[in-house]
Amino acid sequence: MAEASQQTDIRREFQRIRSCTEQITEGLSAEDMVVQSMPDASPTKWHLAHTSWFFEEFLLSRFIPQYQAFDSQFRFLFNSYYEAVGQRHQRPLRGMLTRPALDTVLAYRNHVTGHLTQALETGLAEDPQFLALVELGCHHEMQHQELLLTDILSVLSVHPFHPAMKVSAQKNLAGVNQIVSTGSASRWQHFEAQTIHVGADPDHFHYDCESPRHPHLLPAFALATHPVTNGQWLEFMADGGYDKATLWLSDGWAMCQQQQWHAPLYWQCIDGLWFQFGLDGIQPVDPDAPVCHISYFEADAYASWAGARLAREQEWERAAQSHPPRGNFLERYQWRPRAGPTSSADTAQQMYGDVWEWTQSPYTAYPGFKIAEGAIGEYNGKFMCGQFVLRGGSCVTPVKQIRPSYRNFFYPHQRWQFSGMRLAKDV
Amino acid sequence: MAEASQQTDIRREFQRIRSCTEQITEGLSAEDMVVQSMPDASPTKWHLAHTSWFFEEFLLSRFIPQYQAFDSQFRFLFNSYYEAVGQRHQRPLRGMLTRPALDTVLAYRNHVTGHLTQALETGLAEDPQFLALVELGCHHEMQHQELLLTDILSVLSVHPFHPAMKVSAQKNLAGVNQIVSTGSASRWQHFEAQTIHVGADPDHFHYDCESPRHPHLLPAFALATHPVTNGQWLEFMADGGYDKATLWLSDGWAMCQQQQWHAPLYWQCIDGLWFQFGLDGIQPVDPDAPVCHISYFEADAYASWAGARLAREQEWERAAQSHPPRGNFLERYQWRPRAGPTSSADTAQQMYGDVWEWTQSPYTAYPGFKIAEGAIGEYNGKFMCGQFVLRGGSCVTPVKQIRPSYRNFFYPHQRWQFSGMRLAKDV
Amino acid sequence: MAEASQQTDIRREFQRIRSCTEQITEGLSAEDMVVQSMPDASPTKWHLAHTSWFFEEFLLSRFIPQYQAFDSQFRFLFNSYYEAVGQRHQRPLRGMLTRPALDTVLAYRNHVTGHLTQALETGLAEDPQFLALVELGCHHEMQHQELLLTDILSVLSVHPFHPAMKVSAQKNLAGVNQIVSTGSASRWQHFEAQTIHVGADPDHFHYDCESPRHPHLLPAFALATHPVTNGQWLEFMADGGYDKATLWLSDGWAMCQQQQWHAPLYWQCIDGLWFQFGLDGIQPVDPDAPVCHISYFEADAYASWAGARLAREQEWERAAQSHPPRGNFLERYQWRPRAGPTSSADTAQQMYGDVWEWTQSPYTAYPGFKIAEGAIGEYNGKFMCGQFVLRGGSCVTPVKQIRPSYRNFFYPHQRWQFSGMRLAKDV
Amino acid sequence: MAEASQQTDIRREFQRIRSCTEQITEGLSAEDMVVQSMPDASPTKWHLAHTSWFFEEFLLSRFIPQYQAFDSQFRFLFNSYYEAVGQRHQRPLRGMLTRPALDTVLAYRNHVTGHLTQALETGLAEDPQFLALVELGCHHEMQHQELLLTDILSVLSVHPFHPAMKVSAQKNLAGVNQIVSTGSASRWQHFEAQTIHVGADPDHFHYDCESPRHPHLLPAFALATHPVTNGQWLEFMADGGYDKATLWLSDGWAMCQQQQWHAPLYWQCIDGLWFQFGLDGIQPVDPDAPVCHISYFEADAYASWAGARLAREQEWERAAQSHPPRGNFLERYQWRPRAGPTSSADTAQQMYGDVWEWTQSPYTAYPGFKIAEGAIGEYNGKFMCGQFVLRGGSCVTPVKQIRPSYRNFFYPHQRWQFSGMRLAKDV
Repeated sequence: MAEASQQTDIRREFQRIRSCTEQITEGLSAEDMVVQSMPDASPTKWHLAHTSWFFEEFLLSRFIPQYQAFDSQFRFLFNSYYEAVGQRHQRPLRGMLTRPALDTVLAYRNHVTGHLTQALETGLAEDPQFLALVELGCHHEMQHQELLLTDILSVLSVHPFHPAMKVSAQKNLAGVNQIVSTGSASRWQHFEAQTIHVGADPDHFHYDCESPRHPHLLPAFALATHPVTNGQWLEFMADGGYDKATLWLSDGWAMCQQQQWHAPLYWQCIDGLWFQFGLDGIQPVDPDAPVCHISYFEADAYASWAGARLAREQEWERAAQSHPPRGNFLERYQWRPRAGPTSSADTAQQMYGDVWEWTQSPYTAYPGFKIAEGAIGEYNGKFMCGQFVLRGGSCVTPVKQIRPSYRNFFYPHQRWQFSGMRLAKDV
Repeated sequence: MAEASQQTDIRREFQRIRSCTEQITEGLSAEDMVVQSMPDASPTKWHLAHTSWFFEEFLLSRFIPQYQAFDSQFRFLFNSYYEAVGQRHQRPLRGMLTRPALDTVLAYRNHVTGHLTQALETGLAEDPQFLALVELGCHHEMQHQELLLTDILSVLSVHPFHPAMKVSAQKNLAGVNQIVSTGSASRWQHFEAQTIHVGADPDHFHYDCESPRHPHLLPAFALATHPVTNGQWLEFMADGGYDKATLWLSDGWAMCQQQQWHAPLYWQCIDGLWFQFGLDGIQPVDPDAPVCHISYFEADAYASWAGARLAREQEWERAAQSHPPRGNFLERYQWRPRAGPTSSADTAQQMYGDVWEWTQSPYTAYPGFKIAEGAIGEYNGKFMCGQFVLRGGSCVTPVKQIRPSYRNFFYPHQRWQFSGMRLAKDV
Repeated sequence: MAEASQQTDIRREFQRIRSCTEQITEGLSAEDMVVQSMPDASPTKWHLAHTSWFFEEFLLSRFIPQYQAFDSQFRFLFNSYYEAVGQRHQRPLRGMLTRPALDTVLAYRNHVTGHLTQALETGLAEDPQFLALVELGCHHEMQHQELLLTDILSVLSVHPFHPAMKVSAQKNLAGVNQIVSTGSASRWQHFEAQTIHVGADPDHFHYDCESPRHPHLLPAFALATHPVTNGQWLEFMADGGYDKATLWLSDGWAMCQQQQWHAPLYWQCIDGLWFQFGLDGIQPVDPDAPVCHISYFEADAYASWAGARLAREQEWERAAQSHPPRGNFLERYQWRPRAGPTSSADTAQQMYGDVWEWTQSPYTAYPGFKIAEGAIGEYNGKFMCGQFVLRGGSCVTPVKQIRPSYRNFFYPHQRWQFSGMRLAKDV
Repeated sequence: MAEASQQTDIRREFQRIRSCTEQITEGLSAEDMVVQSMPDASPTKWHLAHTSWFFEEFLLSRFIPQYQAFDSQFRFLFNSYYEAVGQRHQRPLRGMLTRPALDTVLAYRNHVTGHLTQALETGLAEDPQFLALVELGCHHEMQHQELLLTDILSVLSVHPFHPAMKVSAQKNLAGVNQIVSTGSASRWQHFEAQTIHVGADPDHFHYDCESPRHPHLLPAFALATHPVTNGQWLEFMADGGYDKATLWLSDGWAMCQQQQWHAPLYWQCIDGLWFQFGLDGIQPVDPDAPVCHISYFEADAYASWAGARLAREQEWERAAQSHPPRGNFLERYQWRPRAGPTSSADTAQQMYGDVWEWTQSPYTAYPGFKIAEGAIGEYNGKFMCGQFVLRGGSCVTPVKQIRPSYRNFFYPHQRWQFSGMRLAKDV
């Protein structure tokens, strides 16, 4: 009984995740879904197909002998980066995929969802290897739900008129006043030196890069109770933060000048007031909401300016371990970071949701890390170079994707993710 | 009576051209129409809108006081390059225009067509300035019919599986044999030295760059009776034409090496046989059809190899003056250059249609050329630098667009146009 | 006797030109002579060696059986662009040639000069083919004298402190006042329509691109009596000439914005006064001197602004035919364009020397032009694409290089040459 | 007495280091010393001047009130990257510095050496802050001795004929045979898990990035007794190491394909035999010598291929702590990595000298790291992004520069340093 019910759970969860992906694209046209704004981002249609390809390639084709691929060309078109799977279409050209049409891709999704649902009603539902890959595919699809929203924001942002994806009570920009901060200031939460355990609970789902769980000697430190807010960022800007070379990493300063950064991505100044474009259109910057769409370089410069530093990922993980992963995630349908609740407690707030928090930790292998055999081994390990870890999830992250040990990673110049920051310091 | 009938003619011609534009996009999806393959090319949807904008901007808005623009933002979005009209969207970002949706653009077309049709039923139909601009707008739209087909071919070509736009009796590539030439060889038609008149008949429609008609002292020369064929091009390739620096212009050789040219654009070698991708898909190269999609650089190298040269535009015009503009144009719906009729006459064949013929004449002002006042003055004059003249029209050119004096122009490295060549020599 | 004397003349002329090249580099260090400022320009040392290589490759090695090359590697290092001669060192890497040392290059020069002088004392001095090539080599070396000075100016200009090459009465920039114009205004010289002969006198030395001499039907036109001056250019600048898109060619405007042009090359504004860097250092802009170091794009925009146009090369040649080539050439050691003499005559002044004058004529083959066989055939023909003709020579051109039919040519964006302009108009 | 002697020691050490810099440039011409091969590398002349500027800027100008700068413009020209010192010349344009001439730079060196020597005979010799900066300046100059040799190798390598800097018994390449390996194979030295102390002894000179010394929890591991040799690298190449995407980091594979890497930098295959260009010219690859001039990307791919990994910097430091820093350093004047002594001991060999060893540790701040105030604070901290740590010094590193805690750092794609690798593994 228990097993049957567990299988039902997996099947339902799989179906829920698949349908969630389709749901969040409602309101987008086929035209919206085909365009690629930049090489880093992928078209919506590609995300819809690639997540299906993942199940087809690693599950249906490998475990079901008589399975017929929906379209044999999709193996080439929708492989993201798995060298072991074979040749694939180049990432920067994903926006050239006028074909297959959106309808065909939706049919592909149904085909894959249907066959996998059937498979979960057979003996495969008791094959732990199969189930582990279903679970991986589900988490993979949740990751792409976030990327899809992040990438469609990029597409809409390069349109000269900045259309909104999501209906919202969009203000008449002309008559708006800058919102006044009502929030309480960030304080410091102190942590004693301690040897902690870092990395994922081996009994629950996690990615290979979160393991092995291992001891780590952590000196004393303090962590800000709140993420850095837009209001604080406006102070940094007003104080010339984007003009003082000595605040910046060397590479960061070069990038800042080359790209002419003066504010976070998607910010624009209209008649002296600051606005931030988001999935709900152009909205006034809320001074109490966490700053979002900043690069690691900007986060590091801000920390220098504030006389502090970014947290290390182990510090963040220690502070997060006592908090359940609740917050402003994708399911709240806000899709914009929001001001946290006012609180006078000296404990960390908004560790989860709203914005990913840049840490000062390069994305590297934990001691004892082993790359898995085969194509799945390409999931994480080959990216361990030049990127920094972010923690905590954002307002477009599915809540089930997040846990204290979850490591996201991006290059230090990238800003199109929902990335923010939290200060730390030595004590 | 005569006048009323003339007005009816203009109205009908206008409507015919507008509806032809829509007709040739049949079979394309909204996804096909939004994508931009490269900065030189524009999305289909943009062509559909821009040709409407031209009528709205230069006719409806200027001549009809109470006219309300369909959407005031379109002035920015669909201005191509008219500095005098104001700010405009950047050309390389036209592929980012997810909005307006295709349906809105089609409504825009109807709106403009309707209002202009109405205007042609009012007193404006007797205003020669208005009529002249209607005629210009019609010719402008015909130019964009060709560009639209040229650009959609480019979009389809960057798709890894090369879908066809047009249903055709597509061969099974595996079982095909290279087509054997049946054609007669090209001969030379001789022309005596003579002072000729070059440029457009001032009493008929023409672009400013075709005027003023002026005397030109032309030495004796000979012109090939046929365009260079694919079969001849295969000989050039077989003889190492793409590998011999001394055949090439200096800039041409640099481009040939940098771009690794080995054959015309859209050619591919499959199992030792050559095919050329076109709007009707991948078809075997026909040795008797004119070579197409070559750059000026390639044309010049071929001429060196053949011990001849390209024609000057005046030479071409002299030879063409005695031929009516008939040939394989857009209206034949072939949309691929075809072998000409076998003929033993020593007069030029296929001067019109099939392929534009590169001349060795840089695109410059005729003696006495004056740039028109205002935005229309930007139509041609500002492009008189670095480009070469092509003559005769192609298989995707509307027949009514062409006359002996018509000057097309492109940069010497460009290959995505339906461009071919014809040999000339001094005698 | 006459022949012996002619041979002596050739020998002396050869030696004079060789030693002039060395003379004009006096005052430069080995360090100055090795550096390359940009791919278009070559190091002084390279010019010294390449002009020797030309004599070695095309004369000593081909006509003197027992001749031993000074260093066999130089064939690779100092071939400029002769594909027929074989592999060669890449142009943009000429600044990497730390070896051979300057002393070795000077020894190479002596070696070549010595052997060629000897050869001119043998029977070869009566071989017309040999003599023709000696003459070509001498003219080639004169061209490189100009290029050498042009290129070393570029090297000195990229040094942050702009050192002068040439001792001059350099002003204390702080105390200087802008020079006031004393010159008379330019007027128009009128020319009737006429069939003229264009191209070089076949009995005197000229390059292949100046031939064949041929009739040309020239409509009536007027030519400005003076080149455009710095003072006129300052008016153009003051009137926003660099900011008005509608004045510019399309490619010109793109370049102007990309390169952020606001004034001619080498101009700088110090405390509100304009200066121009030259081989004699930073000097106040003289409003009566011809404007120099402008691109074709700027020249064309200026002409639009002035309601005129650039001359065609045939127009320039017609006006120049009645003037002997006298003026401010290299031999005056000014090496900076100077104000012309005040004159009230309505005939063209300063046609020669001071600045090369951009014409609106693309550099193309004259009717009947034939490319020579072999490597020498690469001298001119392969550059007939994308460049414009300049006429008249500059203040760094050797006087003997110039004749009415001489055609110089550069790309329309290039500014490092001593290039200026003269207005023309239709009448 | 002791103090006087210590001052004498410092003075002598300072003079020794200054004169060593000049000594290692013997044999180079002024031409050799002015050229810049790529933006990453600096001209020899610039190194000679910059190391003097460091003493002038941070010591003479700040501690000696009446000190007159040798040339006030040098502050701009020879500042490397100190934003706090003010404007400076751009790094990629250092090769444009024809002036000051080499002689002037040598005079500048004498001037600075003389004044600092004098200062060390005054009361300043007892000012600990002054002495600390003298020591820093000496270590800084030693770093530049290595960079100078590394960069001149790059300059010589871009010359098409690869001249040697250093007289050596250069083989006649034609008659040479590939050297046969005589060496013993690498073995594993095992280390137990342990909490160690990482970082510099605070009582001796070190850079800020080596501090603070701190405890680090190190799991058990094994380290190869020898660096990877050329012989092993040839096996990797023979096994297709440069062609198998799955061995490489994602960024590494992209770089490998873009740059078309097939062997370490400076390797070339002549008639089937492998040679490596070095300061002593082109020499046959010695299979027993450590592989050199590899990127981090290549090192990581090799480790994957070998079923191992790169060491972490703490692992390397632990293994090195028991070895004195002896080895093939700059002072041996080999300037090429050499085969180590044959040994059957299971302890690490050649930890110092020969080649820098890439570790898998990104260059980051140690826990508790503080950036110094002022310009000196820019020495290291601002580079802590995107680079990897290398340890142990190379055959062009001054021996006094090295200690177990010394952290060198470069970007993962860089190969022009004397960089090699050593394997590690988990146990």
